[in-house]
Amino acid sequence: MNTDTNINRPQNIALTSDGSAVRIIDQTRLPGALIYLDLRTREEMYEAILSLRVRGAPAIGIFAAYAVYVLSRGYGAADYFERLDADCDYLISSRPTAVNLARQVNRVRRAAHARADASPAAVTACLRAEADAIRREDAAMCRAIAEHGLSLLRDGDTVLTHCNAGPLATSEYGTGLGPLLLAAERGMDIRALVDETRPLLQGARLTAWELMNAGVDCTLICDSMAALAMKQGRVQAVLAGCDRMAANGDAANKIGTLGAAILAQRYGVPVYILLPSSTIDMTCPTGADIPIEERGADELRSLWYASPMAPAGVKCWNPAFDVTDHELITAIVTEKGVLYPPFETALQQHFGGNSI
Amino acid sequence: MNTDTNINRPQNIALTSDGSAVRIIDQTRLPGALIYLDLRTREEMYEAILSLRVRGAPAIGIFAAYAVYVLSRGYGAADYFERLDADCDYLISSRPTAVNLARQVNRVRRAAHARADASPAAVTACLRAEADAIRREDAAMCRAIAEHGLSLLRDGDTVLTHCNAGPLATSEYGTGLGPLLLAAERGMDIRALVDETRPLLQGARLTAWELMNAGVDCTLICDSMAALAMKQGRVQAVLAGCDRMAANGDAANKIGTLGAAILAQRYGVPVYILLPSSTIDMTCPTGADIPIEERGADELRSLWYASPMAPAGVKCWNPAFDVTDHELITAIVTEKGVLYPPFETALQQHFGGNSI
Repeated sequence: MNTDTNINRPQNIALTSDGSAVRIIDQTRLPGALIYLDLRTREEMYEAILSLRVRGAPAIGIFAAYAVYVLSRGYGAADYFERLDADCDYLISSRPTAVNLARQVNRVRRAAHARADASPAAVTACLRAEADAIRREDAAMCRAIAEHGLSLLRDGDTVLTHCNAGPLATSEYGTGLGPLLLAAERGMDIRALVDETRPLLQGARLTAWELMNAGVDCTLICDSMAALAMKQGRVQAVLAGCDRMAANGDAANKIGTLGAAILAQRYGVPVYILLPSSTIDMTCPTGADIPIEERGADELRSLWYASPMAPAGVKCWNPAFDVTDHELITAIVTEKGVLYPPFETALQQHFGGNSI
Repeated sequence: MNTDTNINRPQNIALTSDGSAVRIIDQTRLPGALIYLDLRTREEMYEAILSLRVRGAPAIGIFAAYAVYVLSRGYGAADYFERLDADCDYLISSRPTAVNLARQVNRVRRAAHARADASPAAVTACLRAEADAIRREDAAMCRAIAEHGLSLLRDGDTVLTHCNAGPLATSEYGTGLGPLLLAAERGMDIRALVDETRPLLQGARLTAWELMNAGVDCTLICDSMAALAMKQGRVQAVLAGCDRMAANGDAANKIGTLGAAILAQRYGVPVYILLPSSTIDMTCPTGADIPIEERGADELRSLWYASPMAPAGVKCWNPAFDVTDHELITAIVTEKGVLYPPFETALQQHFGGNSI
C-alpha cells in the first residue's frame, strides 16, 4: 500500500487489521510517550483532529479519508449516503483552516457518490481504495518535495525549522523536514535549528524527536532566538510547511512563520515554503482571504505547565496561524518542482486548474 | 527613604527591620505565589541573582548594594576591606551582562573605601546610606522615565511589551512599564499586548501580574504572535527596557527584543527603549562589544513543565540576551528626556562623561 523506505520511523496513521478503527500516534503525548490510539466513533475522530492528536495538513487529510471509510462500515443501505454526507460535514468542521481536510474528505465522498448504484459493501470498499490512493499519492509527493527541496541546500548548511512538517504530519518524508531526512539518508551534513513553536511546542516535541530519530544534527531554540541566530550567521535557509497557500503565493502556516520570514529577509536568508500542491487553493486570491483560527487561552496560561504560568484571569490572544506574504518567500517547493517569483504567474501556470 | 506613591504594589527589595538580611520577593515563584525570602549569606545572595529570584537591571543594583551592607555587618576591623572587596567581586560575578550590578556594587565599595579611616560601624553605616541613596535616586529616575515615555503615547494606544521592566525590576514605576502604570493612574486608556517572553516567561509571570495589579488592560500573547498583531494594526508602539546600552545606542535586552524591533520596523511601529542613564555604557562602542550570556538547556527542555517537553538529550542553544541595533530604535528614553537619532551624537552630548 505504501512505498516504504529504510527510514526508521513509526507509522503515524494506519487501519487496525480488522479495519474497524483508525490507529494513530497521539502526537500530543510525544516526546514523553509513544501512545497509539484506535479511533472508532466520529466523536473520537473529531476530537483527535481538534485536539491535534493527529495534525499536519496531509496527515489530517489521510486520517479523515480513512475515518470516513471506518465510519461507512456501519451504514445501512437505507440511509448510507445521508449518513456519509453528515459524517463528512462533521469531520470537515473540526478545523476550519485545514484545506486538505475538506479536500480529501470531499474526494472520498465524491468517489462514493459516483458508485451510488452499488451495494453498501462495494461503496465502502471504494472508500477504502480511495483512502489508500490518497495515502500512496501523498508518500510519492513527499518524496518528490524532499528531492526538490534538497536541491536548494548545500552540504554544511544549517536550516531553521518552524512547527512540524515531518513524517508525523504526512505519510512519509514530510514536507518542510523532507530535505533534512533525505540529506541524512545520503550522509550529507545538513543541520537544523529547531524553533520550539509556542504555544503547542510542535518543534520541541515533534520536530526535534523526528530529526533525532533520523540522525539529523539538531539544536532546539525558543522562537524568540531566531533573530539572533540569523544575525550571527548561523542560519542558511528557513524551511517551513504550509497549511494553505493562496493563488498569489501568500502562505498560511503555524503562527510565527511570518515573523521568521521577516527576520530572514532582514538577514538575507532564503525562505522556502514546502507543500503538496493540494495545499494550494487557487480559488483564494490572497492571504487576506484565509480565515485565521483563534484558539483557547489555556494554551498560553497553563497548558503543559506544572503550575499556572500566568495570572489566572489574564486575557489571551491565541491565533493559531499567520500568513507569510508572498514577497517574503524566496521559493515555493511542491512535488512538481521549485517555483520562483512572480508567484502569481508561476502558480497560475502550474496549478491554474486546481480547486477545492 | 522612598518617595512612595499610591500605587498598590508589593515592596520587591527591603531590609529586614533588624538590618540582618535583605528581604526580596522571589520572582521565580510569581504569579502562583507571593513568597518573601530573607537573604543573609553571600551564597544566598549570589544564588538569588543567578537564579533570577531578583532580576531587572536596576533591582539587581539596589539589591546588591543592600547585600554588601548586610554582609559588611559581619566584618571585623582586621580584614574589613579585604572581605568587602572579596564579597563585592563575588556578587559582581553572578551575572556578567548586568552592568548595573557592577556599577552599584562599585559605588558602595568606593564610598566605603573613602571612609577607610573610620570604624567598621561607621563604614557599614556609610554603606547603608549609599544603598539608600541608590534606591532613592532609582525611584526618582523611574518616575521621570515614566513621564518622558508617556509623552510619546496617545490615549487609545496599545503597546507591545517584552520581558519585564516593571516595578519588580526596579524600585518604583519600572522603566519599560512606567508609562503604562502612569497612564493607568491618570485614567488614560493605554493597553498592553504582553509577550510571554520565553524561556523564563517574565512577561506572562511578571508583567501580566504587575499590569493587572495596576489596572492596566493587558492581553498575553506568545512571542511568535507579535508579527501578526503588528500586521493587523493592533500595536502602536513597542516598549522595552535595556540591560546595557552601547555608546552608539545598540541595546542589549532580553532575548527576543531584537526580533520584535525588526518586526516593528517592517510595520512602521515605533520602538522605544526606556532605561536609566546608568545603564548606558559609554566605554562600550557598539553592541558587538557586549558579551551575550548563554544559559542552560533545561530552561528550554523541561523547566516549568509537568513533563519533559522535548526529547531528553536534545541539544539546546539558549542565549539570554540579544542586541537591538540602534537603527531599529525610534527613540531612547531616560530620566533626562527623549533622545532621537543619530544616537551616537545624542548619547555623547548627554552622557559623554559616564563610565562604569
